[in-house]
Amino acid sequence: MPSAPSEFQIIKRYFEGVGPIDKQLVNQGIGDDCAVINPPANKSLCFSLDTMVEGRHFPKSAPPQQLAIRAMSASLSDLAAMGASPAFFTLSLTLPDSDPDWLEGFSRGLKYMAERYQLSLLGGDTTRGPLTIGIQVHGFTAQDKALRRSGATEGEVLVVTGCLGDAGAALDLLDKSALSGVEEYLLGRYYAPTPRFAEGLLITPYASACIDISDGLLADAGHIAESSSCGLRIDLDALPLSKELREFSKDRAALLALTAGDDYELLFTIPEEGWQVLESKAEASAFTRIGRVEPKSFGVKVFSGEQEVEIERKGFQHFE
Amino acid sequence: MPSAPSEFQIIKRYFEGVGPIDKQLVNQGIGDDCAVINPPANKSLCFSLDTMVEGRHFPKSAPPQQLAIRAMSASLSDLAAMGASPAFFTLSLTLPDSDPDWLEGFSRGLKYMAERYQLSLLGGDTTRGPLTIGIQVHGFTAQDKALRRSGATEGEVLVVTGCLGDAGAALDLLDKSALSGVEEYLLGRYYAPTPRFAEGLLITPYASACIDISDGLLADAGHIAESSSCGLRIDLDALPLSKELREFSKDRAALLALTAGDDYELLFTIPEEGWQVLESKAEASAFTRIGRVEPKSFGVKVFSGEQEVEIERKGFQHFE
Repeated sequence: MPSAPSEFQIIKRYFEGVGPIDKQLVNQGIGDDCAVINPPANKSLCFSLDTMVEGRHFPKSAPPQQLAIRAMSASLSDLAAMGASPAFFTLSLTLPDSDPDWLEGFSRGLKYMAERYQLSLLGGDTTRGPLTIGIQVHGFTAQDKALRRSGATEGEVLVVTGCLGDAGAALDLLDKSALSGVEEYLLGRYYAPTPRFAEGLLITPYASACIDISDGLLADAGHIAESSSCGLRIDLDALPLSKELREFSKDRAALLALTAGDDYELLFTIPEEGWQVLESKAEASAFTRIGRVEPKSFGVKVFSGEQEVEIERKGFQHFE
Repeated sequence: MPSAPSEFQIIKRYFEGVGPIDKQLVNQGIGDDCAVINPPANKSLCFSLDTMVEGRHFPKSAPPQQLAIRAMSASLSDLAAMGASPAFFTLSLTLPDSDPDWLEGFSRGLKYMAERYQLSLLGGDTTRGPLTIGIQVHGFTAQDKALRRSGATEGEVLVVTGCLGDAGAALDLLDKSALSGVEEYLLGRYYAPTPRFAEGLLITPYASACIDISDGLLADAGHIAESSSCGLRIDLDALPLSKELREFSKDRAALLALTAGDDYELLFTIPEEGWQVLESKAEASAFTRIGRVEPKSFGVKVFSGEQEVEIERKGFQHFE
């Protein structure tokens, strides 16, 4: 049996050459005290650091390739929410042991994502301890054009990408074997949410505020409302639900769409004129109008028709 | 008793406003999906991510303020080794619980370091789990002027900053109470190593290769030798040892200086002419000439006078 690889061997074997290196950008990759880049002129650099802990953000049984894909997707989604294009990332990996099979699978997942989204792994740290995955993603927008949470204005339209609630439904399936087709779909949405880069770029000229839904629609709508000092009215009957979610759990579908996290769809506000431009585009089906920006005093409220609906759980917070 | 703070409260209370914000640089700090900066023109961005795990990189009893200082110092040292000036950092903090006293102490340590080295906390993630501290530091050099490990050339001088072995000696003192003055000094060198920014800037025009000593002098000399395809001769009798280390452990002092990690001094190579310039400066006492760059076939060897000395332990590797 081959002996367990050392830290340096792990880096060489599994983490060098992950993703395409942009030679114009990258001056020094893995292998020195720091990585070094030459940032392009007239761009803003956006970055976000996300950490996932075994037993809290994913189950102990999680397959390593899927884990890498999910961790990368969740982090990349933060770039998409700024309207940024991905450029490079760093990885902090804490491992209980250096199991070559696990590392091989994890590395494969990273490479898949790095190729797909055209970003390279430029540095990081590998340590021993309880399984914890930290990823910092970096991307660029045109200078001062990053989408924030803070620009929503009364009267604007509230819009979401994709479908909501699928990943939340998958939480019941994480330990299940022998999955149905519907269950496979939901689990795929949990393990491999799609960072909405194309949508982020498309809405950048029009949107006034944007966030990615990681804590649940209501909680993240609350973040826009707080940052923008506005209220938000959400139309329950307009929420985009996949047919798979409706088939899997008709009763809970709307509640999951409102409160479950991990969907990583974009939630944004946009003036009526901008919405009309988006609606006229070929990509219009990627977006669903789900509400309206209200004055701050309105708060964040959910309506079914003209009837306000009370919702109990406002999404996921790590320390509650 | 006040209830434990939530994730959002933790960020607001302990991690907003850490360090001075450079408004020219920072477009968006904490509080959005990404932080955003506008990188200055004609600069290279250097960055390094380091992770410390409780029970592996620091003892369970470690005081939180000291921990923050040590984690920041270790990370900042990587910037110093590139000749970079610090600009901002991100923090990934995984905590078993949200103990306000611990958070208060940790935050105080971060603020102290951020003020002292003039960099601001721009983002990160707070999660629940086994205590793990990840810090990514970012700094700038003039474009393409970052110091690498790879430029050492035969005949050059090998130089080190400060004293070696102090932090290694402190490992025996981590759980000790009632410390002597000498022991206090050594423990201070473990918990608060000084990132050698002034020295890094000073040597940038002259040095050919540089690394910070985190794994031990011999191991890190090996990294320069490998990256530069050269050999290195280290003169045992020239190693700078503090009087405290010699008093604490006369017998082990040289061995600690050669093999113990965590000193975070700079080790660099420099042509003879450059060394003469350095030696003529007011700051010359910060540097000690400890050896010479040899051809690759020489390997990395330690000599006492003309006698080669065999060293057993080549420093610290995480997965051995």
